Amino acid sequence: VSRFAQDTAVEPAGEDRFTAVVTDRWSGFAGNPLGGYVLAVALRALGRRLAPPDPLAVSAFFLERVVPGPVELRTRVLRAGRRTATGEVGVHQDGREALRATATFADLTAPREGPTLRFADPPALPPPDQAVPLYPDGPPAAPTVARQLEYRLAAEPRWRTGRPSGDPRSEFWTRLTGGGDADPFTLPFLVDAAAPAIMELGASGSVTLQLTLYAHRRPTPGWLACRAATRFMTGGYHEEDFEVWDAAGNLIAQSRQLALPRPPFAWPMAGR
Amino acid sequence: VSRFAQDTAVEPAGEDRFTAVVTDRWSGFAGNPLGGYVLAVALRALGRRLAPPDPLAVSAFFLERVVPGPVELRTRVLRAGRRTATGEVGVHQDGREALRATATFADLTAPREGPTLRFADPPALPPPDQAVPLYPDGPPAAPTVARQLEYRLAAEPRWRTGRPSGDPRSEFWTRLTGGGDADPFTLPFLVDAAAPAIMELGASGSVTLQLTLYAHRRPTPGWLACRAATRFMTGGYHEEDFEVWDAAGNLIAQSRQLALPRPPFAWPMAGR
Repeated sequence: VSRFAQDTAVEPAGEDRFTAVVTDRWSGFAGNPLGGYVLAVALRALGRRLAPPDPLAVSAFFLERVVPGPVELRTRVLRAGRRTATGEVGVHQDGREALRATATFADLTAPREGPTLRFADPPALPPPDQAVPLYPDGPPAAPTVARQLEYRLAAEPRWRTGRPSGDPRSEFWTRLTGGGDADPFTLPFLVDAAAPAIMELGASGSVTLQLTLYAHRRPTPGWLACRAATRFMTGGYHEEDFEVWDAAGNLIAQSRQLALPRPPFAWPMAGR
Repeated sequence: VSRFAQDTAVEPAGEDRFTAVVTDRWSGFAGNPLGGYVLAVALRALGRRLAPPDPLAVSAFFLERVVPGPVELRTRVLRAGRRTATGEVGVHQDGREALRATATFADLTAPREGPTLRFADPPALPPPDQAVPLYPDGPPAAPTVARQLEYRLAAEPRWRTGRPSGDPRSEFWTRLTGGGDADPFTLPFLVDAAAPAIMELGASGSVTLQLTLYAHRRPTPGWLACRAATRFMTGGYHEEDFEVWDAAGNLIAQSRQLALPRPPFAWPMAGR
């Protein structure tokens, strides 16, 4: 069992309710647990109510800050079909609903009728053992999430050098630190955990308002290739697209977020 | 008042409930009302409960077929903040929940702190008066939605000629027929109403499971430039990205759907 599986475990507390303890081991720069980590906890609870094993389509709205400690997960089944099932889950803490997610589950390993096609290429990265670690001297003390994932890139990202590139795109390898492999519940965390693409615009971070994830396959063990890009920012509100690929060039998952930049920031570039 | 505004009107039926009549004037090839049209009705109801005027981030899960006739909209406010408010709405018909949406509303015209940047270009289309109508001889008798929107393209789409291109992308102008202009509630309909990009793969249509829309600006009057593309299909499950731009080259909205192809289909191409 991976550390991630341990830290996202839920306990039944009635027919449709679960409890969990959100730890401080998956926190971002602002010091609170990453939205994608809390979302994974929520999906573990919802998954107990739905027959199919894997989150296929996930939508989450991040309403309030979550702090490390106990949370209650309130679930509801919306539709239980033959191949897919849909439900919703709210993450409650201190009398407030902090996160609301809706998700359709399916069996990602079940045979399917339709074809498999792609009209885009996987990230163009050197093999992981020839790529550059994001933190060559080991992860920083904060944020704590930096200790949970390893990143390797073709070259040191420009935002790390203090001279952001002005081009909000990045490609990199990632894997869980400590030997645990990603599972379908890890995906919402992976797509939310990396440095936001707008770091290359001079932003110091990004606060997610909404996240949608589609899973195409179960993650494979080991390194996964990722691509993050922001194409549009309107008055600060920006989207970020994220793709997760396996080492063989198959798409594992894609996500999109709507987010706001975290101050302070110094915008170096004007885009088009 | 546009025909769309009339056909998406809702009536209060208690503190958190509304009623509406879904008409047969916005139906797709399968004969039932388009998901994006029903979603617009749901958002009109939710909008009555939230102070900000415009849907900013919308997520919808399509659970059951809706048929023309009465529906009940059950709403709940999840968070009412200073600048944004989030709520959920379920569309109920014949004792079943057919659609579940969650949305954050904001004022899209309010001044914002952050910059406006784009790292992608608007569709490359000839001006609307030099573009080719999708239906030069007038819209077909079915689906009824074909009478509600006009489309103009740089050239006749290949799927219309019976020889799909194998390239699931398209760009086109669209506007509401009959002189009504798009408003923010029209956007979920617009992004769902056009011929799916996978028509160029030989599919006869597509059934949406989940749709997420981010609005960046209120629509401008008249023609809007659109771009639709499918990049990934895994065992039939495919995404479709959709962008709506104004005639001046500003992004109005972007959406992504997870969908399944509607049979019959004859796949002509293998992608990459």
